Amino acid sequence: MKIPVVKQILTGNDQIAAENAQTFRENGVFALNLMAAPGAGKTTFILATIDRLPAGIRPAVIEGDLASTIDADTISQRGVPVIQINTGGGCHLDAPMVRNSLPHFALSDIDLLFIENVGNLVCPSNFKLGSALSIVVSSTAEGHDKPYKYPGIFATADVVILTKADILEVFEFDLEFFKRGLKAVNQDAPLFVVSGRTGAGVESWVAWLLDQRRGYTAAT
Amino acid sequence: MKIPVVKQILTGNDQIAAENAQTFRENGVFALNLMAAPGAGKTTFILATIDRLPAGIRPAVIEGDLASTIDADTISQRGVPVIQINTGGGCHLDAPMVRNSLPHFALSDIDLLFIENVGNLVCPSNFKLGSALSIVVSSTAEGHDKPYKYPGIFATADVVILTKADILEVFEFDLEFFKRGLKAVNQDAPLFVVSGRTGAGVESWVAWLLDQRRGYTAAT
Repeated sequence: MKIPVVKQILTGNDQIAAENAQTFRENGVFALNLMAAPGAGKTTFILATIDRLPAGIRPAVIEGDLASTIDADTISQRGVPVIQINTGGGCHLDAPMVRNSLPHFALSDIDLLFIENVGNLVCPSNFKLGSALSIVVSSTAEGHDKPYKYPGIFATADVVILTKADILEVFEFDLEFFKRGLKAVNQDAPLFVVSGRTGAGVESWVAWLLDQRRGYTAAT
Repeated sequence: MKIPVVKQILTGNDQIAAENAQTFRENGVFALNLMAAPGAGKTTFILATIDRLPAGIRPAVIEGDLASTIDADTISQRGVPVIQINTGGGCHLDAPMVRNSLPHFALSDIDLLFIENVGNLVCPSNFKLGSALSIVVSSTAEGHDKPYKYPGIFATADVVILTKADILEVFEFDLEFFKRGLKAVNQDAPLFVVSGRTGAGVESWVAWLLDQRRGYTAAT
């Protein structure tokens, strides 16, 4: 007797992810799924991005964590609409979690939705959320070997962000080695090297992001 | 109709973990399960520990990674017996993986076995391996909020290691905040603040570790 449990779960998630994508399109929301290891600097990067958005682009954030509202509090203090999803131990966000959070937003007032996934370089890549872009964030502090050790998540990225660039030399980070590892698993994803703290590199990332959003909006 | 799939898997893993523990006892192997986020500095910490072991304590290492042999190569270059387990995308080691690796070692020649789990602050804590100690390694670069955000894995730790202490100030790391978060989920685990690079704090950690091993050996 065949019990295709895993396949059914994945199909269910993919189905709901497609519905989320449709909801985002209908409301003109450009949604980003940010995946990274714990402590890569996702929240700082999101805030650095929001700080450089032009007037008229209205951001919002979904914070995914096992527990706590630390990141959501940080975002909220900046006056940005934010929803916290606590997975209660779960190692990733999934499409139903995102769907269930959406009624808490006024979607028509949002242009750019950052979905900060649970800190994990493995599991989140297996669960689509319905976002327009998958973003992998990696920090110089984690070392230059991450694309070699976690190829699966880097392979699914539409764009890769290397954070904490201001302390790249402290960690003897070999940028060319990192780039070769990324290229080996993902030919297409552009790489932006940024520092959320100093703001270095963030402007060219934002320019690229807004360009992607224009393409998305034109297609809807 | 009840299909208790998950329970059977966990029971199976626990059973094999108990068998691994028995194998370790019979061979006088003190085994450590090191869990951490990607890039926390587990390998550097393992090597810093090995460098400070007294003569007569013979180490070996099992390296767990999704892919690559980068860490195993580093260990091997130091003349330490090492086995690489590639999970092929799996987000944690499990007891059968460890069991299947053991025939590749001469167990009677090993006193201290470091099992470096896949970089992941969520999933590894749910799978016992048969180790005598569960060690959670967290780096200052990841920020001082990790025990609040990943309480599950910190709760299971027998001991916690805070690495990259030499750059604690660079990250404005609030050690007291970290300690409070750890204490809230784990009253018992001692904390060692170390730098694998400078060696600071490693000697008192090694002294504690050897004391634990003496207790283990005396009980067998």
